[in-house]
Amino acid sequence: MDGCQPTPLGLGEVLPLQGLKVLRLYPPPGREVSGIYEDLTLPPSRHGDAAKPYVIVNMVSSVDGRTSMEGKAAGMGSRIDRQTMRTLRSRADAVMIGAGTLRAEKLSLGLDETDGLQPLAIIVTHTGNIPLQDHLVATEEQEVLILLSDRVPQAVTERLREFAQVMKAPADSAGVVDLDRALRALKAERGVDVLVVEGGPGLNHGLILRNLVDELYLTVAPELLGGTAAETLTLLRGPEIPASGRPALELVSIHLADGELFLRYSLTRAPENSA
Amino acid sequence: MDGCQPTPLGLGEVLPLQGLKVLRLYPPPGREVSGIYEDLTLPPSRHGDAAKPYVIVNMVSSVDGRTSMEGKAAGMGSRIDRQTMRTLRSRADAVMIGAGTLRAEKLSLGLDETDGLQPLAIIVTHTGNIPLQDHLVATEEQEVLILLSDRVPQAVTERLREFAQVMKAPADSAGVVDLDRALRALKAERGVDVLVVEGGPGLNHGLILRNLVDELYLTVAPELLGGTAAETLTLLRGPEIPASGRPALELVSIHLADGELFLRYSLTRAPENSA
Repeated sequence: MDGCQPTPLGLGEVLPLQGLKVLRLYPPPGREVSGIYEDLTLPPSRHGDAAKPYVIVNMVSSVDGRTSMEGKAAGMGSRIDRQTMRTLRSRADAVMIGAGTLRAEKLSLGLDETDGLQPLAIIVTHTGNIPLQDHLVATEEQEVLILLSDRVPQAVTERLREFAQVMKAPADSAGVVDLDRALRALKAERGVDVLVVEGGPGLNHGLILRNLVDELYLTVAPELLGGTAAETLTLLRGPEIPASGRPALELVSIHLADGELFLRYSLTRAPENSA
Repeated sequence: MDGCQPTPLGLGEVLPLQGLKVLRLYPPPGREVSGIYEDLTLPPSRHGDAAKPYVIVNMVSSVDGRTSMEGKAAGMGSRIDRQTMRTLRSRADAVMIGAGTLRAEKLSLGLDETDGLQPLAIIVTHTGNIPLQDHLVATEEQEVLILLSDRVPQAVTERLREFAQVMKAPADSAGVVDLDRALRALKAERGVDVLVVEGGPGLNHGLILRNLVDELYLTVAPELLGGTAAETLTLLRGPEIPASGRPALELVSIHLADGELFLRYSLTRAPENSA
């Protein structure tokens, strides 16, 4: 180094992340970095509604927009994607998924380090149909909270209470958990300041539609998968969002590692929906 | 400039492309450029099968993988995307779409400059149901070719011949145009060396499945659209491609302009499918 060049991009140097080179391409200047989102602090100092958590959605998708392969999200991303997922979880107070995602496969909502503080695991269900014991891999240190529509019968609620904490949330007009009120309750009652949502697409869609998402972290895996609508999922499942209700997306950063792109978008409320 | 820094990225200088700044982020070094794919030469000097055209697919998608909005692709991309589409068409001998794409909306498969040489417009149809006169905007200089399955009744063929040239291709086992043989015929009989395919997702899927695509140019518009499977399209429509048949994707370049990402992927035949 002669001291007058910025750290150059792509000189072929191998850096610490499991031997793979990670490039931060945007914002400029592009440079090699040792990991993705390592310097991330959430929530940002200025953020909108202090009464609700700062919500980030983290997903992995193929180039053709599929977020599942043979019905599962597992196997879509690389080990760098999984490490990035854990980095994001480590910045959050809670990790939330929809019950359908848990029904689809066995998964963990925690960090790898069993000695660290584990984020609260939250599973949203409208029916109470959750294979908690069979599919949720959780250490004893991790608290598990079922977020339940208040239309679920009391008997189901009682059965779920044997395995996890239960928070009831009012149902909205469609009979499903009112996500806006539920998020506010999570902040007020459980102190959830930063929430990571990891799908599925129905939960993502509900949150986007209600302007409840602050950021989207999307890993684009270099794959073309195909698949009929019945077989595969995409990032959002639900009716087309009318133009007036769509959030504005701003690209915050781009990382690239081993052909996989890591896109970070900031979402702002559609102008027509602003308070 | 002190003479020892590489061209810096993102200094806020406004460059010629309609007043918008275009960054080439990858491959390094990242830098501001005056346009996207302007220095592109197709086909590359070394490419696989000399008996078939060099095939590139060019599509625009939202962040959630939708390639249509209210049933149409129009309106998905920005004017930079449309300019990029024209740049790619200008490098091709022919521009191909599926008949469904033409049924969905009125469109042109040509360049803006009416004085330039227009690429051959090719519409693939299995049924002969094409609203050619109502939906295809073409100058007199542009030749139009209907690529037709040989199972289409002769009367339909004759009717289409009134408006365009017709090339019959054998049907494959599923009764649709055998794309592999059709592409070889386009090269041999029509001299199509470089072919741009612009969807729809059924045609894309058929080509990908048969390992006929050399490159994918994907514009990712900063939008979240949602939409049920019946309402919206994605890049590929068709059954999940088995792992053994998936092409390997290599990221060739990334451009960014006004929040829109321009990804260029090179596809190579799945190892198991290699000759």
